Amino acid sequence: MYCLVKFAPLFLAVAVCNGWLFGDFVGKLKELDEISLWPLPQKFQSSAVAFKLSPARFQIVQAKQSSTGPSCSILENAFRRYFEYIFGDLKKPEKSRKKVYDSDLVELQVWVTSPDPECDGFPSLQTDESYELSVDEPSAVLKAANVWGALRGLETFSQLVYEDDYGVNNINKTDISDFPRFAHRGILLDSSRHFLPLKVILANLEAMAMNKFNVFHWHIVDDHSFPYMSRTFPELSQKRKGAYHPFTHVYTPSDVKMVIEFARMRGIRVIPEFDTPGHTESWGNGQLLRPCFHSTYRSCRESNPDIQKFMVQQGFGTDYSKLESFYIQRLLDIVAATKKGYMVWQEVFDNGVKLKADTQIHVWKGRPQYQDEMAQVTAAGFNALLSTPWYLNRISYGQDWVNIYKADPQNFTGTDAQKKLVIGGEACLWGEYVDATNLTPRLWPRASAVAERLWSDKSVTDVDNAYNRLVQHRCRMVKRGIPAEPLFVGHCRQEYKGL
Amino acid sequence: MYCLVKFAPLFLAVAVCNGWLFGDFVGKLKELDEISLWPLPQKFQSSAVAFKLSPARFQIVQAKQSSTGPSCSILENAFRRYFEYIFGDLKKPEKSRKKVYDSDLVELQVWVTSPDPECDGFPSLQTDESYELSVDEPSAVLKAANVWGALRGLETFSQLVYEDDYGVNNINKTDISDFPRFAHRGILLDSSRHFLPLKVILANLEAMAMNKFNVFHWHIVDDHSFPYMSRTFPELSQKRKGAYHPFTHVYTPSDVKMVIEFARMRGIRVIPEFDTPGHTESWGNGQLLRPCFHSTYRSCRESNPDIQKFMVQQGFGTDYSKLESFYIQRLLDIVAATKKGYMVWQEVFDNGVKLKADTQIHVWKGRPQYQDEMAQVTAAGFNALLSTPWYLNRISYGQDWVNIYKADPQNFTGTDAQKKLVIGGEACLWGEYVDATNLTPRLWPRASAVAERLWSDKSVTDVDNAYNRLVQHRCRMVKRGIPAEPLFVGHCRQEYKGL
Repeated sequence: MYCLVKFAPLFLAVAVCNGWLFGDFVGKLKELDEISLWPLPQKFQSSAVAFKLSPARFQIVQAKQSSTGPSCSILENAFRRYFEYIFGDLKKPEKSRKKVYDSDLVELQVWVTSPDPECDGFPSLQTDESYELSVDEPSAVLKAANVWGALRGLETFSQLVYEDDYGVNNINKTDISDFPRFAHRGILLDSSRHFLPLKVILANLEAMAMNKFNVFHWHIVDDHSFPYMSRTFPELSQKRKGAYHPFTHVYTPSDVKMVIEFARMRGIRVIPEFDTPGHTESWGNGQLLRPCFHSTYRSCRESNPDIQKFMVQQGFGTDYSKLESFYIQRLLDIVAATKKGYMVWQEVFDNGVKLKADTQIHVWKGRPQYQDEMAQVTAAGFNALLSTPWYLNRISYGQDWVNIYKADPQNFTGTDAQKKLVIGGEACLWGEYVDATNLTPRLWPRASAVAERLWSDKSVTDVDNAYNRLVQHRCRMVKRGIPAEPLFVGHCRQEYKGL
Repeated sequence: MYCLVKFAPLFLAVAVCNGWLFGDFVGKLKELDEISLWPLPQKFQSSAVAFKLSPARFQIVQAKQSSTGPSCSILENAFRRYFEYIFGDLKKPEKSRKKVYDSDLVELQVWVTSPDPECDGFPSLQTDESYELSVDEPSAVLKAANVWGALRGLETFSQLVYEDDYGVNNINKTDISDFPRFAHRGILLDSSRHFLPLKVILANLEAMAMNKFNVFHWHIVDDHSFPYMSRTFPELSQKRKGAYHPFTHVYTPSDVKMVIEFARMRGIRVIPEFDTPGHTESWGNGQLLRPCFHSTYRSCRESNPDIQKFMVQQGFGTDYSKLESFYIQRLLDIVAATKKGYMVWQEVFDNGVKLKADTQIHVWKGRPQYQDEMAQVTAAGFNALLSTPWYLNRISYGQDWVNIYKADPQNFTGTDAQKKLVIGGEACLWGEYVDATNLTPRLWPRASAVAERLWSDKSVTDVDNAYNRLVQHRCRMVKRGIPAEPLFVGHCRQEYKGL
């Protein structure tokens, strides 16, 4: 009989239930510091009883009852990844060290319960990412409906492990029941203003998984360059105006496939963005666009006699917003035919373009005020995604993660029905001032603040508590090879080994 | 007969003198872009005539007339370093490829003219860093009074080399006569608020040499930690309050020696800072400090009966500024006895502490206004160093390098004699928010803006021209392995290979 307690409001309370000493746990501040779960699970209970993990004996395995099997590579890969996160890059243990002690935790059993575990699937907006984790001797059990929840639980399990003074890995008796507050938790990276080498994109997908993000919004092309190598329209990237360089600064179809698969293995879906009707200057030399008779976009379409003729034919008069509506409608029809979803930036909604009911509106304008727009979008019945307070390319001196952390996508005046239309948000790192040299430390751990806001319960708002956990979480990312920058004065047990 | 022209004011003019076509050079914009000297030399003239450099044949050698010999390791090391910067990490050339073509530049002769070349010396504030460089077939000649000027000229020579469309290294016929505007051109790094692994410090010394900086101001200890392992007072770093960790977060005597030697090889002197009387909290557990009866420094000294007794003995009454003067005087006497120079932060001057005439005052307060303080310090006859506009730890969104670039240490109301007391400045990167994960891209190329201000002629102020050169210079740093961040949208031929 477990007693699951909502963690946040009881954090400093001394609660005793069914023999679990919450107070003891709070008393052991050192271990608490070192556990430092991020983002904080929805329901969490721990005891002072600790088990030891031996790299020679401990293993992560599929439970006998699990609907997955040995061919479920998404799990098998994750097991190896998390074993290495926990124990580092160790040599194969010697066989003689197989003796098990009473205080050992010998295995983590991963139990996928749904008949279809989705081993070969892709995560979606409807994906159930919930999981339950019970750590007790001699085995810990992680239970989830599908592999996606199992991935989230593996990350949490790895965060529960801490080193004692002898360098031995310990884990406390723990019960967790967890699920995300929002279904869409994204990071936008921009590979047009600066080309981002694959290595950087993959490292950031790893960091995203450490923070339970589940959407990589890939702003792959824009006015500045077209690094996407299209099979259908290869000239878009190969002509001089396309990519910065047609060989060294492009993503080939196999690169893109690799990014999608690397992301899938971490429960992340990739949303590629081909921004249109604006932001298409780099497409020009591929001859996809209509000829332009002026230099700017708006005057461009107005100066083209074919477009003027079309306006008359359609009865649009001189109302170019009708032309835009027509264009967007046609485009969304095409996208809908491929059975893919569609997101639009808020201008399309603001400009009064007629939209399909299931369109997702991405709110980004009006920093720092986003409340009115969120209220209007949801009042009109559309799904809303928030990014306004999370333009992480914008930097300032000091601990700016605090305001990032305080913003809440449901903090606007509206009905419960409106609040339910908020599907999440995205941290955006536009590329004007970032490339491979500085992207990763600029994004992390600032994006971690967004991660907790989108995953954890809305009551999790204590900045001091968040600071203490986030300091440890960023050191954990550093230990795992991610150059996440410091929040403030201090140190990590293992400092970053790179440059 | 060479005609040396001051570069900046004639940059866009078409000047013809002694057969040198300045205009041709300006016309060849592509090569100009790729040459991108940084910081700009004092006198510079180039022609459109280009020579090719073959990695199989080209060499950097000591001139026969040079006062240096094969044992001058500072030069021999620099030759290897700059050969690699120019050609990359190449295998040994095959012997058969020794044929020389007419259009080849086959060698750079380095000619040190002073009887004492200072091969085993250290740079100082009085060091002559001037050099003359003449690139012509079949040899280029670099002439300097000592090895320090030769190092500066080698950097300039390497910056003159550019790749043509075939990837072949070219260099144009060029004459340069160069010297620094200010003698003290420094970077301050702080290893107390965050420990900086040696690797990071060494990489930044390399970047400093690429920008002709000559002082590494090492703010090695402060309140937050004492990573300096003292032979005389080992407890300062070894006790728990000292270093963040007594083994993993310290600089051993041999580490410090290595930093000093690595810097010396690049013409950089190391100024270690042990800030006092404030900023000494981390010294406490080493028992060097007087017992404190209150928690803050000021109340500390006022509460200590021994100090109160001492005040009475010295006839200071209750004027603690007299105590401070006494302390500083004693300290500077001790430092003077070691024949080392001394710098103090401006507060010591502002507080009216009596100072020796040759004290250097480091101006850092009052952002963005520094003019009054510079005027006062120099009016009082002291040497002044500027850092106020160059606190590079302070960041903001956008191209903040422009204001960094525009600040000028002699931009204050004062006599010529006062202006001459300005010995230079320092770019400071305080450690609250930086460590190994983000230090290098946050410092470069923003510190490069300071480098040009302190080296080049005061007339070199054209921001557009600087932008074009700095974009190329930062790509050069990236190519050499320094993760210098981008100024704005664009790309480098070779993007950064790390994370």
